Amino acid sequence: MSSSAVAYARQNQRRFLEELKGLLRIPSISTLAEHKRDVEKAANYVAAELGRIGMENVSVISTPGHPLIYADWLHAPGAPTGICYAHYDVQPPDPLGEWISPPFEPAERDDNLYARGAADDKGQLWMEVKAVEALMRAHNGKLPINVKFLLEGEEEVGGESIAAFVRKEKTKLKADFALVCDTELFAPDLPTLCVGLRGLVYTEIEAIGPKTDLHSGMYGGAAPNPFFALIQIISRLKDEKGFILIPDFYHGVKPPGAEELEAWSRLPFDEEDYRKAEIGSNALWGEPGFSVLYRTWARPTLDVHGMPGGFTAKGAKTVIPARARAKISMRLVPDQDPDDIAERYTSYVQKLAPRGVECNVKIWSKALPCLVPTDNKYVSAATEALGEVFHKDTVFIRSGGSIPIVSDFQDMLNIPSLMMGFGLPDDNLHAPNEKFHIPNFHRGIESICLLFEKLGASS
Amino acid sequence: MSSSAVAYARQNQRRFLEELKGLLRIPSISTLAEHKRDVEKAANYVAAELGRIGMENVSVISTPGHPLIYADWLHAPGAPTGICYAHYDVQPPDPLGEWISPPFEPAERDDNLYARGAADDKGQLWMEVKAVEALMRAHNGKLPINVKFLLEGEEEVGGESIAAFVRKEKTKLKADFALVCDTELFAPDLPTLCVGLRGLVYTEIEAIGPKTDLHSGMYGGAAPNPFFALIQIISRLKDEKGFILIPDFYHGVKPPGAEELEAWSRLPFDEEDYRKAEIGSNALWGEPGFSVLYRTWARPTLDVHGMPGGFTAKGAKTVIPARARAKISMRLVPDQDPDDIAERYTSYVQKLAPRGVECNVKIWSKALPCLVPTDNKYVSAATEALGEVFHKDTVFIRSGGSIPIVSDFQDMLNIPSLMMGFGLPDDNLHAPNEKFHIPNFHRGIESICLLFEKLGASS
Repeated sequence: MSSSAVAYARQNQRRFLEELKGLLRIPSISTLAEHKRDVEKAANYVAAELGRIGMENVSVISTPGHPLIYADWLHAPGAPTGICYAHYDVQPPDPLGEWISPPFEPAERDDNLYARGAADDKGQLWMEVKAVEALMRAHNGKLPINVKFLLEGEEEVGGESIAAFVRKEKTKLKADFALVCDTELFAPDLPTLCVGLRGLVYTEIEAIGPKTDLHSGMYGGAAPNPFFALIQIISRLKDEKGFILIPDFYHGVKPPGAEELEAWSRLPFDEEDYRKAEIGSNALWGEPGFSVLYRTWARPTLDVHGMPGGFTAKGAKTVIPARARAKISMRLVPDQDPDDIAERYTSYVQKLAPRGVECNVKIWSKALPCLVPTDNKYVSAATEALGEVFHKDTVFIRSGGSIPIVSDFQDMLNIPSLMMGFGLPDDNLHAPNEKFHIPNFHRGIESICLLFEKLGASS
Repeated sequence: MSSSAVAYARQNQRRFLEELKGLLRIPSISTLAEHKRDVEKAANYVAAELGRIGMENVSVISTPGHPLIYADWLHAPGAPTGICYAHYDVQPPDPLGEWISPPFEPAERDDNLYARGAADDKGQLWMEVKAVEALMRAHNGKLPINVKFLLEGEEEVGGESIAAFVRKEKTKLKADFALVCDTELFAPDLPTLCVGLRGLVYTEIEAIGPKTDLHSGMYGGAAPNPFFALIQIISRLKDEKGFILIPDFYHGVKPPGAEELEAWSRLPFDEEDYRKAEIGSNALWGEPGFSVLYRTWARPTLDVHGMPGGFTAKGAKTVIPARARAKISMRLVPDQDPDDIAERYTSYVQKLAPRGVECNVKIWSKALPCLVPTDNKYVSAATEALGEVFHKDTVFIRSGGSIPIVSDFQDMLNIPSLMMGFGLPDDNLHAPNEKFHIPNFHRGIESICLLFEKLGASS
């Protein structure tokens, strides 16, 4: 580790962290229309920093949704070109009351930085930016490889704009690999590359019963209740064991190979510890016959996220609501096709709708599941770099989440992604008290520095 | 109709209506803690008016919940004593966006008065007060019978305080009959007495899964989802035909007699018209083999009113929530026992809770179902009075709603209730755009004047 970039990064740790806090203070919640300006503000914050550190052609690109950020530095002839991807948008912070410190006022406690977006994904975005800064400063304003930044503000809402951009701008985005920092270490101190992601179909069913809210005393027994329609439908989408009942839903599912399964079984993972530490329920849940890692990485699932409508305040109101809704998503695995699943789902839901209730299905977003290849020099360099920072062998895992851009890079630019993330399993992504382990923020910066230096040296 | 009280009432119609608007402007929503002061304010508004018109011993009585109002005038020796009951609390007005004019700014449109509480029950409470005023003024400060007012502010939240008061104050409340104005005409211009009410058990299930909200990508397939637990449970509470599956739920159900059923079949009622005009859904719903009137008056039901929890804003959030809730109520019929049903329900729900999810059941309120006797002089006088005002024969119906005080009067004071109400089936009780047909407000006042005069004359 005689890297001068790493030395520079170490000298500037405190400043890097304070700058990240500035980004975390901007509530760039992409799914809430009232935060549109904040998402823009976050984009401008990041773009300004890219310019300051020496990236060129920095641009904040308007889209029908939230802006993309592009920047490049292409003065390393003969060296490979990498696209640095991350996202600067975040999930909503509710339920607000469960946060120990406010979600948009970053707070340090016990070596952790608490804030919405700390790990997902502003902290990891900032690692990429700061690694490039360290490389520039340590190498007299030059980078060891060619770098393009492509950062988005719609990851939490389906990432449609970046997908369209990648499809349109194949030449501008020509590259050899992508660095995607939006995943986590399998365990603290265990260097990890993620090689598989689940896909997603996020839906909302609106059930419409009476023309107006009705008194359940007067009308109970005659008026169709839209909540009951939703309950009937949802109870038939998935059985009690977790098996999804949509016809032909499992058609495309390709099980992991024996070698991959065997590698998973060697990972340091105890289901009972996981239940206690991460879930906290009195039992785990899911399809019998599959391990937790198998279920969350390589089996599709269906979850209900919320059921708006009717009376939800404290107390009692005897109403049969005119309408009710259910937010339902499915996680998909290779080789399920989101378009096909969305269609099967919609027509099955329509078929299940009981008489008296009209059901409309909206598809909020879709993402392809994917597996990335591991037999290339980018993966080799990454495992070497991680080995030097962590002093351990890198493990290959999958993630149950969805990062749609990884499939886009694979399908449209024909390049592999290095999913090299530094979150931890207990970082509370999408939940109250999201955090980022501060030492991992710095290790992430150092790992990226070493990765780029190795790729530059070998070219 | 040579009643001088009726003549007085007619001369004062406009003032009576304007005074009612003053009461309707007070948002006395009993189920919302933040409106506690408004409920008190409404109580004081009514009490002040009772004093002004000449009632004696007017008192606003504090309770653990909302205040009761008592007043009496007992200077008609030999004449019967009637208790005037009504309630001055109202349901929450949400969804606010669906109101054409604001719920607490009474607005006259097409002979209707629109406001939350217009028909349920402030408008009908005010009929009682104004009838007594008219009688006092027309009879030189005297009433034809002895009158006690007992008005409550907790009808919409279960009426526990009035029940306790009636149980404790049997002597103070000694009377011969009660006049309960909180029901409706079966059809416009058709004088109606209600002789049966459904009971109620209002519950809330809280389902607790993970210790905190979790990302459905990372944890979907392993973490128990509390919404799914609720959906599983609720789908087993009632089948798709409307039959309730709680063990022994129908044990106490006593079907109406052949004569009553026959009378219902003669009522001017068309199920298809009802579907279109009142429900507005593309089909009616409920147990096959029972008519709409049978289902809503004499069959128990179970409804879901809201399912708070998780993500309910616009857009997509991929969360497995730590907890979710379901507000569920059952309407009961004679002779089902609310205590018994609440117990059976609770233990059945607990049994249905799937592994991994803890379910807590809260009972918000209970009300006895009841049937009132019709073979007494109070019913005879009421049908005569109604006949003179409406020029039609009175029909006897039941109501699907719950008015717990009617059973309390029957069980604890041993007196029959005259459920003489003047709402209309399309008054949007508990819903947006609640209204009261203004001519019915005045007919109500006149009917009460005549009823009391007849009872006074016959004694």
